[in-house]
Amino acid sequence: MNIHIAQCEFRIGDLAFQTQQVIDVCTSAAAEGADLVLFPELWLPGYPAMDLLYRSDLHSRIGQSIKRIADELNGVCAVAVGYPRPASAELAAYSPELGARPTLYNTLGLIAGGEIIAEHRKCSLPNYEVFDERRYFQIGDGPTVVPFKGRNLGLLVCEDVWIPSIVEATMAAGADCLLVSNGSPYHRGKWSERASELAEVARQHQVPLFYSNSVGGQDDLVFDGDSQAFDAQGQRQARAPMFQPAVLACELDQGNVKGPNLAEDPDTWGEVYDALVLGTRDYIEKNGFPGVILGLSGGIDSALTQAIAVDALGADRVTAVMMPYHYTSDISKDDAAEQANAQGVEYHVAPIVEPVEALKAQVLPILGDRPLGTTVENLQSRSRGVILMGLSNATGRLVLTTGNKSELAVGYATLYGDMAGGYNVLRDVPKTWVFELAKYRNRISPVIPERVITRPPSAELAPDQVDTDSLPDYPILDDILDRYLAAHQSPQQIIEAGHAAETVERVIRLVNIAEYKRRQGAVGPRVTPSSFNEDRRVPITQRWH
Amino acid sequence: MNIHIAQCEFRIGDLAFQTQQVIDVCTSAAAEGADLVLFPELWLPGYPAMDLLYRSDLHSRIGQSIKRIADELNGVCAVAVGYPRPASAELAAYSPELGARPTLYNTLGLIAGGEIIAEHRKCSLPNYEVFDERRYFQIGDGPTVVPFKGRNLGLLVCEDVWIPSIVEATMAAGADCLLVSNGSPYHRGKWSERASELAEVARQHQVPLFYSNSVGGQDDLVFDGDSQAFDAQGQRQARAPMFQPAVLACELDQGNVKGPNLAEDPDTWGEVYDALVLGTRDYIEKNGFPGVILGLSGGIDSALTQAIAVDALGADRVTAVMMPYHYTSDISKDDAAEQANAQGVEYHVAPIVEPVEALKAQVLPILGDRPLGTTVENLQSRSRGVILMGLSNATGRLVLTTGNKSELAVGYATLYGDMAGGYNVLRDVPKTWVFELAKYRNRISPVIPERVITRPPSAELAPDQVDTDSLPDYPILDDILDRYLAAHQSPQQIIEAGHAAETVERVIRLVNIAEYKRRQGAVGPRVTPSSFNEDRRVPITQRWH
Repeated sequence: MNIHIAQCEFRIGDLAFQTQQVIDVCTSAAAEGADLVLFPELWLPGYPAMDLLYRSDLHSRIGQSIKRIADELNGVCAVAVGYPRPASAELAAYSPELGARPTLYNTLGLIAGGEIIAEHRKCSLPNYEVFDERRYFQIGDGPTVVPFKGRNLGLLVCEDVWIPSIVEATMAAGADCLLVSNGSPYHRGKWSERASELAEVARQHQVPLFYSNSVGGQDDLVFDGDSQAFDAQGQRQARAPMFQPAVLACELDQGNVKGPNLAEDPDTWGEVYDALVLGTRDYIEKNGFPGVILGLSGGIDSALTQAIAVDALGADRVTAVMMPYHYTSDISKDDAAEQANAQGVEYHVAPIVEPVEALKAQVLPILGDRPLGTTVENLQSRSRGVILMGLSNATGRLVLTTGNKSELAVGYATLYGDMAGGYNVLRDVPKTWVFELAKYRNRISPVIPERVITRPPSAELAPDQVDTDSLPDYPILDDILDRYLAAHQSPQQIIEAGHAAETVERVIRLVNIAEYKRRQGAVGPRVTPSSFNEDRRVPITQRWH
Repeated sequence: MNIHIAQCEFRIGDLAFQTQQVIDVCTSAAAEGADLVLFPELWLPGYPAMDLLYRSDLHSRIGQSIKRIADELNGVCAVAVGYPRPASAELAAYSPELGARPTLYNTLGLIAGGEIIAEHRKCSLPNYEVFDERRYFQIGDGPTVVPFKGRNLGLLVCEDVWIPSIVEATMAAGADCLLVSNGSPYHRGKWSERASELAEVARQHQVPLFYSNSVGGQDDLVFDGDSQAFDAQGQRQARAPMFQPAVLACELDQGNVKGPNLAEDPDTWGEVYDALVLGTRDYIEKNGFPGVILGLSGGIDSALTQAIAVDALGADRVTAVMMPYHYTSDISKDDAAEQANAQGVEYHVAPIVEPVEALKAQVLPILGDRPLGTTVENLQSRSRGVILMGLSNATGRLVLTTGNKSELAVGYATLYGDMAGGYNVLRDVPKTWVFELAKYRNRISPVIPERVITRPPSAELAPDQVDTDSLPDYPILDDILDRYLAAHQSPQQIIEAGHAAETVERVIRLVNIAEYKRRQGAVGPRVTPSSFNEDRRVPITQRWH
C-alpha cells in the first residue's frame, strides 16, 4: 500500500483553500500510485482556529467541505484528514444550529469510496503551554482501528501517540499500522525529541507509523512540518523537510516502509533562524501586508530583524529608518547605513530632535520641577514609534518591532516606543541567542556589519549608556530568566545554582512588574516552550515575589 | 450552628494577607458566636492565580499558611477555605518539588480542631469564557460530606453547585447542609441568575445552602461578592452587599436559616457603574499607583471615564489633560474645562499643534506624494498618547484609556494613540451603555455636562467629523455586535434579524481585521460575558469571513 504524507500550507478559517489542497494533493498523489494521503490535525479549518470553532456557520461549511472531498476523491484515493466534529452531527451532515458552545471532537476522518469510513476522536487533549483544547473539545471515547486494503489502520491525533495507554488500546484493537495526524508547533530542538519518541512507539509495538504535521506560521506559532515515517523496527525510512511544504510518498509492505529522505538534521542555530523567517513571512503574507518597516538603530537586534525580514520577504519589501537623536553615535549611523546598503533595502534617515523638543515643550511645563525619571528617554523612543507608525499608515507596510526576549522579560523596552508595531520577530529570542543567530546568518553571507555584533549593546537613550549599566551581563541574565521562566525555579533554587542573591531578586522583580508591557506587545514567533505568548499566563496584578 | 460567610478583599499571590484575614475574620466571628466561617474558592493564593500555580515554591508556602490557620484557630472556630492542593501532598504537608506542571486539585478544606478534617476536590472545572481551570486542575473524584457539630456538611466549589449530578451525589452521601465556595466574576445581571439557580438547588433538595464569593477587581475581572444563604425551602434568608467586603453572620437550625439582609436588588445601570468603579479602584490600588491621568476630550467616553475615576479614587488622584488641535471645537474645550472644574480634578491644556507639525515634518517627506490615508489623524492621536505617557512616566500616575467596546470592536481607535494606557475603564462597555451610564451618574449628582451627553459623538480628528460618518448609528452597531460577539450568530442570521446586509458584512469585516489592535489594548473591567478579554480568543491571522 502507498501512503503519502502531506505537510502543506494552511490559512485559518479558509475552508475553500484547505479543501482545494486536499483535492489537488490527493489527485496528484493518486497519479503517483497513492492509496491514501495523510493530512495534519484539524486541517480543514486550520489549527488553532481558537474561538472560530464557536461560529455557528463554521460546522455546516465543514460538512460541505467533507462532502466535496468525499465526492471528488471517490475512485481517486483515500484521505485521512482532521476536522472538528459536533457531537450531534450525523456523519458528513452537520447541524447548523449548535448554540454558542457546541460539543465538539477533535476528529481524524478516513474518507474513502465517497464516504467517511471511520472517525477517530482525539483522546488526549493538551491544555497546557500554548494549548487550550479542553476549551473546545470533549475527550474521545477510545481507540479507532479501521480495515483498509488488507491492513488495519490505527488512527491517532497528535498527543494520542505520546500516551502509552492510548497506543496500547489501539494496538489491542488490532492495528497493524498507525496514522498520526498532528498540529505540533515548533520549539528549538523539538524535532529531535519528536523523532526519538516516535521511533520508540514504532519499535516498542513493532508497528509502522506515519506522522503528518502542519507547516507554516500562524500568529505566534510556527509549525515546522518535519513529517516522517517509521518501519516496524522503529527505523525512520522517510523524512520531509522542516519549514516548507512537501508530500512524502511512502510505500508500506508488511512491517517495511520505503520513502524519500528529504532532510538532514538541522544546524543548531539554523533551525531557529529558519523558524523566525517562516513565522515572519507567513504573518506578513497571510495578513496581506505589502511589506515591512523597521527602525534600524545600528544595534544588533534591529540588524538581525532586518536580516530575517529580507530573507523572509526580499529586500524590495523592507524599509529601514534610522531615527537619530543627540545620543545616537556616529558608529550607529554608519553601521545602519552600511547594512541597509549591503542588503539593498529602502533606507531613510528621520531625525527625532524636533519632535522630541515639541513634545517636551508640552510635557515639561506640566511637570514643573518634579523629577523626570525616564520621561525624556521615553519621548525619544515614542517619537520613533510614532514616525514608523505614520509611515505604516500611509504605505500599508507593517512595522516590525525589534526587541528581544531578554529585554521584554525585564521591561527594558518602551511601550508605544520601540514596542510599537505588529510583529516582534525576536519576541521569544534571548539576547544570547541574538548574537549566535547574527553570527549564523553572517556565515551564510555577511550582511550584518561585524562591529554591530562585537560592540557593547546600548539603547542610546542617554549619553554613553550601555545595557550593562542597568542589567546583568546577558549570559547571566538569560540563565536566570531560563530558570525562572522555563523551569519555574524559585529564587532560592536559582541562587543555589550559583547566581548572586541580589541579582536574582532584582531580575525576578523586574520580570514580575513588566507583565503589563508584555500584554500590550506585538505577537512574535515562538521558538522556546516558555514563550511570553500563550505559554506563560500570569496576572498583571499580583504580589507573588 | 452559626455559620458566617466571609467575602473579603484579596491580593493574588499575597498568602500572608489572605492568611491574616482568615485568622482575623474568624477570630472576630468566633467572638460573635460563629462555629464555622466559609471563605471563597482558592482563597489563599487568590483567584485566578493563573500560572503562578506553577511556581515551585507556592505550594509549600500554602502548606505553611494552612498550618498557621489550623494552629491559630484551634479552639476558636472552624473554617472552610479554598486552596490548590498538589495530588502528591500529604494533608497540610506539601512537597516543594513538584516539577513544572504539578497535578493540582481545586480544593475546599474544612479546618477544625487544629487540622484539616475534610477536603473537597472541585469536580466541575470550567474551561470556557474567561476560565482555564483545566489548565491547572485535575477533576475531583466525588462528593464530600463531613460530619461537623451534629450536621453533615456537603462541600462544593463553585460550578459544582450548577451540575445536578454533583449536587445529587452530595445529597446521596448524606449532606444536610451545603457550603459552596466561589470565585464567580461579575457580568451584568448575573446576580439575578445566581440567586434563582441557588434557590432552586436549595428548594429542590430541601437543603440549606451557604454561598460565599470573592469581592474585588483583578485585572479584567470584577468579583461582585453577593454572598447569600438559603433555607431548606429555597428562601433566601441572608444577603451580603455587592462590590464590597462583608461578613454575613447566619444561624442554622434544622432546615431554617436566619441572617441579615444587607442588600437590595441593584439598579439596572447602577450595578454596571459600581462594577466599573470597583474594577478601576482595585487595579490602581492593588498595583500601587498614586493616581491616574486621562485625556479629557469633551466627548462622552472620557467624561464618563473621569466620573468613574473620581468616584473610585477621589478627585485629588485624578489628572485630566485637554490636548486640542485644529479640529478641536470650542464646545469640546469648554465642556472639558467645565467637567474638570465641576469634579475638582487637576486640569491641564497641552496643545498638540507643534508636536504634530514636527512629526509630520519627518514623516511626509519620506512618503512623498503617496496618499496619506489616516496618517495625519493618527499623528494627532499618537501625539496625545505620548504626552499622557510622558506625564505618567514622571508622576507614576497610570494613564486611563477612554475608548468604549463598540469602538474597540470595529477598530475605531488608534493604537499607541487613544489606546495608550494601562487600564481601559470602558473596554467592555458598548457605546449605547455609555450614554445610559452617564445619565445614571448624573442622576446621583450632575458631574457630566449635559451637552456632552446630547451632542453627536465625534473623534474630532478631521474637520466637522462625526462618528456616524463612518459607523452605523450606535444602537444598530451595538445590536449587530451583540449578535456576532455574544450569540455567535452568522451574518445570515443577523441579516434575518432585520439588519441591512451591507452593514452587517462591513461591521463583521471591521471586527475581524481589528483583532490585532485589541490584542495590544489595555485590560479593563469585564461587565458582559462576551468581553474582549479572555472571553473571546480568536486568531489575528485568519480568513473566516
